[in-house]
Amino acid sequence: MRVLAVAVLAVLTAPAMAAEGMWTLDNLPKQAMQAEFGFSPDQAWVDKVMKSSVRLAGGCSGSFISPEGLVMTNHHCVVDCVAQLSSEGSDFVKNGFIAREHGDELKCPDMELNRLEQIADVTDQVRAATDGLNGDAYSKAKKAVQSRLEADCVGDDSQATRCDIVELYQGGKQHLYRYTRFQDVRLVFAPEVAAAFFGGDPDNFNFPRFNLDMGILRAYVDGKPAKLDNWFGFKQAGAAEGELVMITGHPGSTQRLLTVAQLKALRDGGLTDRLLYIAELRGLLTQYGALGEEQARQAQPDLFGIENGFKALRGRLDTLNDDAFFVRKQAEEDALRAFVAADPGLAENVGDPWAAIASAEATFDEFADAYLLIEGGRGFATEYFGIARGLYRAGAERELPNEKRLREFTEAGLPRLEQTLLSDAPLYPDYEKVKLAWSLTKLRETLGTDHPLVKRILGKESPQQLAARVIDGTRLGDVDARKALWLGGAKAVAASDDPMIALVRDIDAAARELRLRYETEVEAVEQKNAERIAQARFAKDGTGVYPDATFTLRLSYGAVQGWNEKGTDIPAMTHIAGMFERATGADPYKLPDSWLQHQADLDGSLPMNFVSTNDIIGGNSGSPVINAKAEVVGLVFDGNIHSLGGAYWYDGRLNRAVAVHPATIIQALRKIYGAGALADEMTGQ
Amino acid sequence: MRVLAVAVLAVLTAPAMAAEGMWTLDNLPKQAMQAEFGFSPDQAWVDKVMKSSVRLAGGCSGSFISPEGLVMTNHHCVVDCVAQLSSEGSDFVKNGFIAREHGDELKCPDMELNRLEQIADVTDQVRAATDGLNGDAYSKAKKAVQSRLEADCVGDDSQATRCDIVELYQGGKQHLYRYTRFQDVRLVFAPEVAAAFFGGDPDNFNFPRFNLDMGILRAYVDGKPAKLDNWFGFKQAGAAEGELVMITGHPGSTQRLLTVAQLKALRDGGLTDRLLYIAELRGLLTQYGALGEEQARQAQPDLFGIENGFKALRGRLDTLNDDAFFVRKQAEEDALRAFVAADPGLAENVGDPWAAIASAEATFDEFADAYLLIEGGRGFATEYFGIARGLYRAGAERELPNEKRLREFTEAGLPRLEQTLLSDAPLYPDYEKVKLAWSLTKLRETLGTDHPLVKRILGKESPQQLAARVIDGTRLGDVDARKALWLGGAKAVAASDDPMIALVRDIDAAARELRLRYETEVEAVEQKNAERIAQARFAKDGTGVYPDATFTLRLSYGAVQGWNEKGTDIPAMTHIAGMFERATGADPYKLPDSWLQHQADLDGSLPMNFVSTNDIIGGNSGSPVINAKAEVVGLVFDGNIHSLGGAYWYDGRLNRAVAVHPATIIQALRKIYGAGALADEMTGQ
Repeated sequence: MRVLAVAVLAVLTAPAMAAEGMWTLDNLPKQAMQAEFGFSPDQAWVDKVMKSSVRLAGGCSGSFISPEGLVMTNHHCVVDCVAQLSSEGSDFVKNGFIAREHGDELKCPDMELNRLEQIADVTDQVRAATDGLNGDAYSKAKKAVQSRLEADCVGDDSQATRCDIVELYQGGKQHLYRYTRFQDVRLVFAPEVAAAFFGGDPDNFNFPRFNLDMGILRAYVDGKPAKLDNWFGFKQAGAAEGELVMITGHPGSTQRLLTVAQLKALRDGGLTDRLLYIAELRGLLTQYGALGEEQARQAQPDLFGIENGFKALRGRLDTLNDDAFFVRKQAEEDALRAFVAADPGLAENVGDPWAAIASAEATFDEFADAYLLIEGGRGFATEYFGIARGLYRAGAERELPNEKRLREFTEAGLPRLEQTLLSDAPLYPDYEKVKLAWSLTKLRETLGTDHPLVKRILGKESPQQLAARVIDGTRLGDVDARKALWLGGAKAVAASDDPMIALVRDIDAAARELRLRYETEVEAVEQKNAERIAQARFAKDGTGVYPDATFTLRLSYGAVQGWNEKGTDIPAMTHIAGMFERATGADPYKLPDSWLQHQADLDGSLPMNFVSTNDIIGGNSGSPVINAKAEVVGLVFDGNIHSLGGAYWYDGRLNRAVAVHPATIIQALRKIYGAGALADEMTGQ
Repeated sequence: MRVLAVAVLAVLTAPAMAAEGMWTLDNLPKQAMQAEFGFSPDQAWVDKVMKSSVRLAGGCSGSFISPEGLVMTNHHCVVDCVAQLSSEGSDFVKNGFIAREHGDELKCPDMELNRLEQIADVTDQVRAATDGLNGDAYSKAKKAVQSRLEADCVGDDSQATRCDIVELYQGGKQHLYRYTRFQDVRLVFAPEVAAAFFGGDPDNFNFPRFNLDMGILRAYVDGKPAKLDNWFGFKQAGAAEGELVMITGHPGSTQRLLTVAQLKALRDGGLTDRLLYIAELRGLLTQYGALGEEQARQAQPDLFGIENGFKALRGRLDTLNDDAFFVRKQAEEDALRAFVAADPGLAENVGDPWAAIASAEATFDEFADAYLLIEGGRGFATEYFGIARGLYRAGAERELPNEKRLREFTEAGLPRLEQTLLSDAPLYPDYEKVKLAWSLTKLRETLGTDHPLVKRILGKESPQQLAARVIDGTRLGDVDARKALWLGGAKAVAASDDPMIALVRDIDAAARELRLRYETEVEAVEQKNAERIAQARFAKDGTGVYPDATFTLRLSYGAVQGWNEKGTDIPAMTHIAGMFERATGADPYKLPDSWLQHQADLDGSLPMNFVSTNDIIGGNSGSPVINAKAEVVGLVFDGNIHSLGGAYWYDGRLNRAVAVHPATIIQALRKIYGAGALADEMTGQ
């Protein structure tokens, strides 16, 4: 805590520390990079890097690493696909997967890749459409103009083009991102989970680390490997300590620009509620997995996500529970308010957005439980529910003009939605029943037995009875049944007697009401007032600051560098030999047989994992670490424990990104997995 | 939130609201009771009430209700005994238990009752022994004098007499409580859990409520029912709305006198850690219970405690997350500090205990995780570990002079310790393995794989392997094996090759070191400085205030009264008919067959549960509600949701105790359970 407290003072006097920031590619801190590292990227460099980077629509990052569409990312970014391609008796998660030739590459059921092609500033158009509006009118007008801009951008090529409005600076800027969309994505290589995630949850977010957290995909177009003009070269030697390294990727979400009232609401309710929910679910799924190998296999993808999320959220809560943190945030907010107050014209324009946001948070507090459980789906923790709701609402929404639809059903998003809803990834009814029954007990516990919606949902059934009835009775496990409802639209879902569809239908009016209340009384108020705060911030600091993360392409720069942990120096690199020393033979420190058999073939002195000062966060998983020549010198897969508070601030002395070293990647492919052809393709040989 | 904020102002101007306070019986607020209700208890009344009240050493309260040793308490206070007396195929928890005659009454394996006989003020003796000492010296001297005073009080009759030092006002007063001890306690009656805990966890801490949460025990002496001079009469008609009612019982613990630094430490760490721990354990045990009826039976007692604890702690955290709460606490603390500062003599004596306590909290933060996991036992969540550590340490400690022993091994406590360690309550190895393996993963996760103690404990084993090895190998499930180690003492445990004993032995030095650090650097500092704060508080307010709860006998007074919940009036009473209306046929709203069969025999208009304004907290479960004539007019079993913040403050407008009405108790015994003889004994017929 003391270390962070000292950092407060340093940061207060220098808004952006060295290496701080997740910068959009159209606003890179070239001057600072030049001053610190003697490197200032030119436009050709930026263009190449932009088109060589790739987003995994499910929540990760990656990089193109060959002209034949090869994509490098993390194992934990492809593990859902690996699990979906597995079955009882053929467990690729456990045993790994290697396609020896193109024909062996297997299509991932619901993977989508996005390559950024263009960024356009549409702030003025959005502002013009919402000028002078509030509440419901503001919310509707804004969504309408956003949907229209996206549809215009996509044109008639929605299969290959994706356009997303991105709200930067908490709404201060509206940008339109145009992507090339790849939906035929095939699995090329995944090591055994025991190598990819060696050390498991205990080592997650920790360092020293010894993970081969890599997965290789290939983008296909028209049934053939995609032909690419831009891709990253591969530098096996990696980067030296102290060398400039950049990370291009898609950090998901940060909350560094939130007001103190919003941060306190997170601390006092939102974050704690979510942590307690996933803690209990984790216990439940852990014990479900203990039933047997097959049950463990079924639960693993969820459990991985939950354990990862638990640590990440816990790290954030620890930051919010640090009094020094709020001292800094309050000081920043006070300084901005004083700046506004000192300029009568600005004060007139900006008003008191902080009070309006605090009031919206108090309003949300009144119905947040119901909103999160019913509309947010926490009360219905099963894949079937998400599918049923998607199909049901897609029916109604597609009848409406594009601009009046719920945002997730606009034309621009339909290809991704269809891919997700009609995915042939397997579902396990017994497993889904356990989750649904449990989450229904949380619904009842949180809202209370006497809540009208709880009474309506459960009637005289227990959570277990309801879960069993709707999951035993549903036909949504069958992709053809889903397809019929998708194609049949509103009429088909209205007529459906599928019990899962019926459950969704029964609560849909109430769920939409909660959503409308949220969008009108909370979201619209917060967005409108965040725009005002952004206006004040631009007036005070200009646009030489970076926006909060939005799961869009960003570049962070830093150096390969260890840190000092309470008096102990943590070296920047680990080596292959250390992994063998750490192995115990017992999960999660049990090495796969392939590694044990080939231990003698490996050069134990090669670097395995390393840390750098780059500012990253969840969503950056799978990002390439590149050098000034735009060569891959690492593969990001984690942050250290101090990086977790990065949602709210950045401390350059402790915050570290964790990456796989390219030497180990190539060594493992060649010596352990006999995947020389793949290594050749990656290294351009 | 708004309601509590208003309460702040009211409370600031009137330190003790009507009905606030858990008063020791030697310092009752007679004047206030007289003024508010026209009743002032005389000494004879107090003596009778004191000797008619009883403590369940495991953590509950009760009352003597016949001259033949009959004890009334809650079902949830006897459910451990009921479960221990059950076995596969004979499930008294599910089916209930009735002893038709004395010979059918079954001895509870580890139940102890305590009846308070005398209170002596020993503050001066303790103060004299610790005067001028600090840290380790203070801690040792204090424990020594406390152990000596207890031993002197017990004399040579430790089987029938129990003496406990009680630190009141956070150490401001030291009292010596002498009890009669009953260890032969037999189960007389327990309804089906479905009637006792109708509505289960969802209804827990909520109201309206419909529970027959009662259990009847009988104290035996020399193999015969205890003959008593004092017991409570029973008034079937109960108390009218608005009538004065008093609750005598043993509230476990409140933290109303803690400093702001201590409360913030609870909010920012302690409470959240514990909540997350039990949330995950809850999920684990829920799913273990889903394996089958027998597994559900095994997990039920733990799950009940966990679910109850979860809600209680969550309620407390909500209070600590209320900014208005800290505004009030800070104002109280500031006022006390200002009072001290204004009096140079007092300031000289008192110093700055607040800063010292804040510093001790910061110190604790450095090693709290290790302390709680290793010495606190969170890393070893199995009954076997508690037994093994008890036996192991009992060996070493009993070799020491009484005054040098760890407090839980002093002579005065040995009878209760022996009863607990040699209890023949059944243990279920498979179930215990699940808990132990899980808690070992928490140990590793929290301290990290590289922590020396984690390495020492796990070595090359996984948590699952270690748990299986020590539980498969231990002989501590056999009471005779335990007895041999208990009688064999230090030599026997040193020579034992029992793997559970070996595990305890292996970490005992490290565990004791953590404990010593805690007692010296945290506990001693906080106690010594709490004494100073108490000194300041006495100087400012006199002793007309009540001490924090200490699981010792207290009286709270109030009135039967509903409350207003966000604009809706909640009536004070529910009625039997409402229970049948609420029943769904599905657990936890499934009525037992006995109730369904006898529905027509019952008078549905009789009051079932009711609320009153009395100030109570966990530990009060099983307390009698009595009227001015010292007649039982209710049986406390819960508080409403607003009572949970009662750990830190009391809000008389919302805080309510929840009790079973005597009319329903007698009706159920006579009409449903055919237990007329028992009803006759209770009602003195």
